Amino acid sequence: MVPCGSCKLLRRRCRKDCIFAPYFPSNQPQKFAIVHKVYGASNVTKMLQEVPHHQRVDAVNSLVYEANARWRDPVYGVSGTVTYLQNQVSELQTQLAVAEAKILYFQMKYESMMLSPEIDTDEKSYFMQNDISQYISHDTSNNVNHNSFHKDGFPSFSNH
Amino acid sequence: MVPCGSCKLLRRRCRKDCIFAPYFPSNQPQKFAIVHKVYGASNVTKMLQEVPHHQRVDAVNSLVYEANARWRDPVYGVSGTVTYLQNQVSELQTQLAVAEAKILYFQMKYESMMLSPEIDTDEKSYFMQNDISQYISHDTSNNVNHNSFHKDGFPSFSNH
Repeated sequence: MVPCGSCKLLRRRCRKDCIFAPYFPSNQPQKFAIVHKVYGASNVTKMLQEVPHHQRVDAVNSLVYEANARWRDPVYGVSGTVTYLQNQVSELQTQLAVAEAKILYFQMKYESMMLSPEIDTDEKSYFMQNDISQYISHDTSNNVNHNSFHKDGFPSFSNH
Repeated sequence: MVPCGSCKLLRRRCRKDCIFAPYFPSNQPQKFAIVHKVYGASNVTKMLQEVPHHQRVDAVNSLVYEANARWRDPVYGVSGTVTYLQNQVSELQTQLAVAEAKILYFQMKYESMMLSPEIDTDEKSYFMQNDISQYISHDTSNNVNHNSFHKDGFPSFSNH
Protein backbone atom coordinates (compact mmCIF):
# COMPACT_ATOMS: atom_id res chain seq x y z
CA MET A 1 0.00 0.00 0.00
CA VAL A 2 1.30 3.47 -0.97
CA PRO A 3 1.72 5.53 2.21
CA CYS A 4 -0.19 8.82 2.45
CA GLY A 5 1.67 12.13 2.38
CA SER A 6 1.79 12.25 6.18
CA CYS A 7 3.09 8.72 6.78
CA LYS A 8 5.65 9.22 3.99
CA LEU A 9 7.00 12.31 5.77
CA LEU A 10 6.84 10.68 9.20
CA ARG A 11 8.49 7.52 7.74
CA ARG A 12 5.94 5.20 9.22
CA ARG A 13 3.67 2.44 7.94
CA CYS A 14 0.35 3.86 6.65
CA ARG A 15 -2.44 1.84 8.24
CA LYS A 16 -5.85 1.26 6.72
CA ASP A 17 -7.47 3.53 9.32
CA CYS A 18 -4.83 6.27 9.06
CA ILE A 19 -6.55 9.51 10.13
CA PHE A 20 -4.46 11.59 7.71
CA ALA A 21 -4.74 9.44 4.55
CA PRO A 22 -8.08 10.90 3.24
CA TYR A 23 -6.75 14.48 3.42
CA PHE A 24 -3.02 14.27 2.77
CA PRO A 25 -2.35 12.34 -0.48
CA SER A 26 1.13 11.05 -1.22
CA ASN A 27 1.48 13.31 -4.26
CA GLN A 28 1.13 16.47 -2.11
CA PRO A 29 3.89 16.09 0.47
CA GLN A 30 4.05 19.84 1.14
CA LYS A 31 0.43 19.91 2.37
CA PHE A 32 1.26 17.80 5.42
CA ALA A 33 4.79 19.19 5.83
CA ILE A 34 3.50 22.68 6.51
CA VAL A 35 0.87 21.69 9.12
CA HIS A 36 3.39 19.35 10.75
CA LYS A 37 5.89 22.21 11.00
CA VAL A 38 3.38 24.63 12.59
CA TYR A 39 1.15 22.35 14.70
CA GLY A 40 2.98 19.03 14.92
CA ALA A 41 1.49 15.71 13.80
CA SER A 42 0.11 14.77 17.23
CA ASN A 43 -1.74 18.08 17.63
CA VAL A 44 -3.21 17.77 14.12
CA THR A 45 -4.38 14.25 15.04
CA LYS A 46 -6.06 15.56 18.21
CA MET A 47 -7.70 18.45 16.35
CA LEU A 48 -9.07 16.14 13.65
CA GLN A 49 -10.39 13.71 16.26
CA GLU A 50 -12.42 16.57 17.80
CA VAL A 51 -14.19 17.25 14.46
CA PRO A 52 -16.95 15.09 12.90
CA HIS A 53 -15.84 13.10 9.83
CA HIS A 54 -17.89 15.16 7.36
CA GLN A 55 -16.18 18.40 8.49
CA ARG A 56 -12.61 17.13 8.48
CA VAL A 57 -11.90 18.25 4.90
CA ASP A 58 -12.80 21.82 5.89
CA ALA A 59 -10.78 21.55 9.11
CA VAL A 60 -7.70 20.34 7.18
CA ASN A 61 -8.09 23.09 4.57
CA SER A 62 -8.31 25.79 7.23
CA LEU A 63 -5.28 24.37 9.10
CA VAL A 64 -3.26 24.26 5.87
CA TYR A 65 -4.33 27.84 5.06
CA GLU A 66 -3.35 29.11 8.52
CA ALA A 67 -0.07 27.17 8.55
CA ASN A 68 0.86 28.64 5.15
CA ALA A 69 0.03 32.14 6.44
CA ARG A 70 2.28 31.56 9.48
CA TRP A 71 5.07 30.33 7.22
CA ARG A 72 4.80 33.45 5.01
CA ASP A 73 4.46 35.82 7.98
CA PRO A 74 6.03 34.35 11.15
CA VAL A 75 5.01 37.40 13.23
CA TYR A 76 1.36 37.95 12.34
CA GLY A 77 0.32 34.85 10.40
CA VAL A 78 -3.32 34.88 9.33
CA SER A 79 -4.07 37.50 12.03
CA GLY A 80 -2.34 39.98 9.70
CA THR A 81 -4.95 39.19 7.04
CA VAL A 82 -7.74 39.70 9.60
CA THR A 83 -6.35 43.12 10.57
CA TYR A 84 -6.00 44.12 6.91
CA LEU A 85 -9.58 43.08 6.13
CA GLN A 86 -10.97 44.79 9.25
CA ASN A 87 -9.32 48.05 8.14
CA GLN A 88 -10.69 47.61 4.62
CA VAL A 89 -14.23 47.08 6.00
CA SER A 90 -13.93 50.18 8.16
CA GLU A 91 -12.69 52.29 5.23
CA LEU A 92 -15.45 51.06 2.93
CA GLN A 93 -18.10 51.77 5.58
CA THR A 94 -16.82 55.35 5.82
CA GLN A 95 -16.79 55.76 2.03
CA LEU A 96 -20.33 54.39 1.85
CA ALA A 97 -21.52 56.81 4.54
CA VAL A 98 -19.97 59.71 2.61
CA ALA A 99 -21.56 58.52 -0.66
CA GLU A 100 -24.99 58.22 0.99
CA ALA A 101 -24.66 61.70 2.46
CA LYS A 102 -23.86 62.98 -1.04
CA ILE A 103 -26.96 61.26 -2.40
CA LEU A 104 -29.04 62.87 0.33
CA TYR A 105 -27.54 66.26 -0.50
CA PHE A 106 -28.39 65.88 -4.19
CA GLN A 107 -31.85 64.60 -3.36
CA MET A 108 -32.57 67.68 -1.25
CA LYS A 109 -31.26 70.04 -3.94
CA TYR A 110 -33.17 68.14 -6.58
CA GLU A 111 -36.44 68.27 -4.65
CA SER A 112 -36.08 71.95 -3.86
CA MET A 113 -35.60 72.64 -7.57
CA MET A 114 -38.68 70.59 -8.38
CA LEU A 115 -40.74 72.72 -6.01
CA SER A 116 -39.78 76.01 -7.70
CA PRO A 117 -41.26 76.79 -11.14
CA GLU A 118 -38.03 78.33 -12.39
CA ILE A 119 -34.41 77.79 -11.53
CA ASP A 120 -33.10 80.82 -9.80
CA THR A 121 -30.49 82.47 -12.02
CA ASP A 122 -28.18 83.16 -9.08
CA GLU A 123 -28.36 79.56 -7.93
CA LYS A 124 -27.67 78.30 -11.43
CA SER A 125 -24.70 80.60 -11.68
CA TYR A 126 -23.45 79.42 -8.26
CA PHE A 127 -23.62 75.78 -9.22
CA MET A 128 -22.06 76.28 -12.65
CA GLN A 129 -19.15 78.10 -11.03
CA ASN A 130 -18.78 75.42 -8.39
CA ASP A 131 -18.89 72.45 -10.74
CA ILE A 132 -20.41 69.62 -8.71
CA SER A 133 -18.31 67.03 -10.48
CA GLN A 134 -15.50 67.90 -8.05
CA TYR A 135 -17.52 66.32 -5.25
CA ILE A 136 -18.00 63.07 -7.08
CA SER A 137 -15.64 60.17 -6.54
CA HIS A 138 -15.91 57.75 -9.48
CA ASP A 139 -13.65 55.07 -8.10
CA THR A 140 -13.66 53.28 -4.76
CA SER A 141 -10.51 54.93 -3.43
CA ASN A 142 -10.80 57.42 -0.65
CA ASN A 143 -10.25 60.58 -2.70
CA VAL A 144 -12.85 62.91 -1.22
CA ASN A 145 -11.77 66.53 -1.15
CA HIS A 146 -12.73 67.57 2.36
CA ASN A 147 -11.54 71.14 1.98
CA SER A 148 -13.88 71.74 -0.96
CA PHE A 149 -16.70 70.16 1.00
CA HIS A 150 -16.22 72.51 3.87
CA LYS A 151 -15.61 75.63 1.79
CA ASP A 152 -18.80 75.22 -0.19
CA GLY A 153 -21.06 74.51 2.72
CA PHE A 154 -21.19 70.71 2.44
CA PRO A 155 -21.15 68.86 5.72
CA SER A 156 -17.66 67.70 6.57
CA PHE A 157 -17.14 63.94 6.90
CA SER A 158 -14.00 62.64 8.51
CA ASN A 159 -12.57 59.49 6.99
CA HIS A 160 -9.89 59.14 9.62
CA MET B 1 11.84 32.57 41.53
CA VAL B 2 8.14 32.42 40.58
CA PRO B 3 7.80 30.28 37.45
CA CYS B 4 6.20 31.86 34.38
CA GLY B 5 2.77 30.73 33.19
CA SER B 6 4.33 28.27 30.75
CA CYS B 7 6.78 26.63 33.12
CA LYS B 8 4.01 26.41 35.74
CA LEU B 9 1.82 24.49 33.30
CA LEU B 10 4.71 22.34 32.06
CA ARG B 11 5.78 21.73 35.69
CA ARG B 12 9.37 22.61 35.04
CA ARG B 13 11.94 24.96 36.55
CA CYS B 14 11.73 28.44 35.04
CA ARG B 15 15.24 29.48 34.01
CA LYS B 16 16.50 33.04 33.82
CA ASP B 17 16.62 32.85 30.01
CA CYS B 18 13.19 31.16 29.66
CA ILE B 19 11.91 32.09 26.18
CA PHE B 20 8.28 32.13 27.37
CA ALA B 21 8.66 34.17 30.59
CA PRO B 22 8.39 37.68 29.05
CA TYR B 23 5.11 36.83 27.29
CA PHE B 24 3.34 34.31 29.51
CA PRO B 25 3.10 35.66 33.07
CA SER B 26 2.23 33.32 35.94
CA ASN B 27 -1.06 35.13 36.62
CA GLN B 28 -2.39 34.32 33.12
CA PRO B 29 -2.12 30.52 32.95
CA GLN B 30 -4.82 30.27 30.24
CA LYS B 31 -2.73 32.30 27.79
CA PHE B 32 -0.09 29.60 27.53
CA ALA B 33 -2.52 26.71 27.98
CA ILE B 34 -4.38 27.58 24.77
CA VAL B 35 -1.28 27.92 22.55
CA HIS B 36 0.18 24.75 24.10
CA LYS B 37 -3.03 22.87 23.28
CA VAL B 38 -3.11 24.02 19.64
CA TYR B 39 0.58 24.27 18.71
CA GLY B 40 2.47 22.45 21.44
CA ALA B 41 5.20 24.05 23.58
CA SER B 42 8.08 22.90 21.35
CA ASN B 43 6.49 24.36 18.20
CA VAL B 44 5.80 27.66 19.97
CA THR B 45 9.48 27.72 21.05
CA LYS B 46 10.62 27.15 17.45
CA MET B 47 8.24 29.82 16.11
CA LEU B 48 9.44 32.39 18.66
CA GLN B 49 13.08 31.59 17.91
CA GLU B 50 12.45 32.44 14.23
CA VAL B 51 11.20 35.94 15.15
CA PRO B 52 13.39 38.90 16.26
CA HIS B 53 13.06 39.79 19.95
CA HIS B 54 11.24 43.09 19.33
CA GLN B 55 8.49 41.31 17.35
CA ARG B 56 7.90 38.43 19.76
CA VAL B 57 5.10 40.21 21.67
CA ASP B 58 3.17 40.56 18.40
CA ALA B 59 3.94 36.98 17.41
CA VAL B 60 2.67 35.68 20.80
CA ASN B 61 -0.48 37.82 20.58
CA SER B 62 -1.28 36.55 17.09
CA LEU B 63 -0.67 32.93 18.15
CA VAL B 64 -2.94 33.36 21.19
CA TYR B 65 -5.61 34.97 18.99
CA GLU B 66 -5.47 32.15 16.42
CA ALA B 67 -5.39 29.44 19.09
CA ASN B 68 -8.48 30.93 20.77
CA ALA B 69 -10.25 31.07 17.40
CA ARG B 70 -9.41 27.37 16.81
CA TRP B 71 -10.69 26.51 20.28
CA ARG B 72 -13.99 28.35 19.62
CA ASP B 73 -14.37 26.95 16.10
CA PRO B 74 -12.47 23.65 15.70
CA VAL B 75 -13.47 23.37 12.02
CA TYR B 76 -12.68 26.81 10.58
CA GLY B 77 -10.69 28.59 13.29
CA VAL B 78 -9.62 32.10 12.32
CA SER B 79 -10.10 31.18 8.62
CA GLY B 80 -13.84 31.50 9.32
CA THR B 81 -13.28 35.12 10.35
CA VAL B 82 -11.28 35.73 7.15
CA THR B 83 -14.09 34.32 4.99
CA TYR B 84 -16.68 36.42 6.85
CA LEU B 85 -14.64 39.61 6.40
CA GLN B 86 -13.94 38.87 2.72
CA ASN B 87 -17.69 38.55 2.11
CA GLN B 88 -18.32 41.79 4.01
CA VAL B 89 -15.72 43.63 1.88
CA SER B 90 -17.26 42.28 -1.32
CA GLU B 91 -20.77 43.34 -0.22
CA LEU B 92 -19.61 46.84 0.78
CA GLN B 93 -17.79 47.26 -2.55
CA THR B 94 -21.02 46.42 -4.37
CA GLN B 95 -23.05 48.84 -2.22
CA LEU B 96 -20.47 51.56 -2.83
CA ALA B 97 -20.57 50.98 -6.60
CA VAL B 98 -24.38 51.26 -6.50
CA ALA B 99 -24.18 54.46 -4.42
CA GLU B 100 -21.64 56.00 -6.80
CA ALA B 101 -23.80 55.14 -9.79
CA LYS B 102 -26.74 56.86 -8.06
CA ILE B 103 -24.60 59.95 -7.48
CA LEU B 104 -23.64 59.95 -11.16
CA TYR B 105 -27.31 59.64 -12.12
CA PHE B 106 -28.27 62.61 -9.92
CA GLN B 107 -25.32 64.59 -11.17
CA MET B 108 -26.43 64.09 -14.80
CA LYS B 109 -30.04 65.01 -14.00
CA TYR B 110 -28.89 67.98 -12.01
CA GLU B 111 -26.60 69.25 -14.71
CA SER B 112 -29.22 68.84 -17.44
CA MET B 113 -31.63 70.89 -15.30
CA MET B 114 -29.00 73.57 -14.81
CA LEU B 115 -28.60 73.88 -18.58
CA SER B 116 -32.31 74.56 -19.18
CA PRO B 117 -33.73 77.95 -18.11
CA GLU B 118 -37.00 76.41 -16.92
CA ILE B 119 -37.92 73.03 -15.55
CA ASP B 120 -40.12 71.24 -18.00
CA THR B 121 -43.59 70.88 -16.46
CA ASP B 122 -43.91 67.30 -17.66
CA GLU B 123 -40.57 66.35 -16.18
CA LYS B 124 -41.46 67.95 -12.85
CA SER B 125 -44.73 66.08 -12.82
CA TYR B 126 -42.90 62.80 -13.63
CA PHE B 127 -40.44 63.22 -10.79
CA MET B 128 -43.03 64.32 -8.27
CA GLN B 129 -45.13 61.25 -9.08
CA ASN B 130 -42.07 59.00 -8.83
CA ASP B 131 -40.75 60.33 -5.55
CA ILE B 132 -37.00 59.90 -5.77
CA SER B 133 -36.70 59.21 -2.07
CA GLN B 134 -37.64 55.60 -2.83
CA TYR B 135 -34.29 55.17 -4.59
CA ILE B 136 -32.29 56.40 -1.66
CA SER B 137 -30.86 54.00 0.88
CA HIS B 138 -30.19 55.85 4.13
CA ASP B 139 -28.50 53.01 5.97
CA THR B 140 -25.65 50.75 4.98
CA SER B 141 -27.78 47.64 4.52
CA ASN B 142 -28.32 46.36 1.04
CA ASN B 143 -31.93 47.47 0.61
CA VAL B 144 -31.94 48.74 -2.96
CA ASN B 145 -35.24 48.23 -4.73
CA HIS B 146 -34.11 46.82 -8.08
CA ASN B 147 -37.61 46.47 -9.50
CA SER B 148 -38.32 50.17 -9.00
CA PHE B 149 -35.00 51.01 -10.58
CA HIS B 150 -35.82 49.05 -13.68
CA LYS B 151 -39.44 50.12 -13.95
CA ASP B 152 -38.68 53.82 -13.83
CA GLY B 153 -35.81 53.77 -16.27
CA PHE B 154 -32.92 53.83 -13.77
CA PRO B 155 -30.01 51.63 -14.72
CA SER B 156 -30.25 48.23 -13.04
CA PHE B 157 -27.40 47.30 -10.67
CA SER B 158 -27.03 43.76 -9.53
CA ASN B 159 -25.85 43.27 -5.95
CA HIS B 160 -25.65 39.50 -6.29
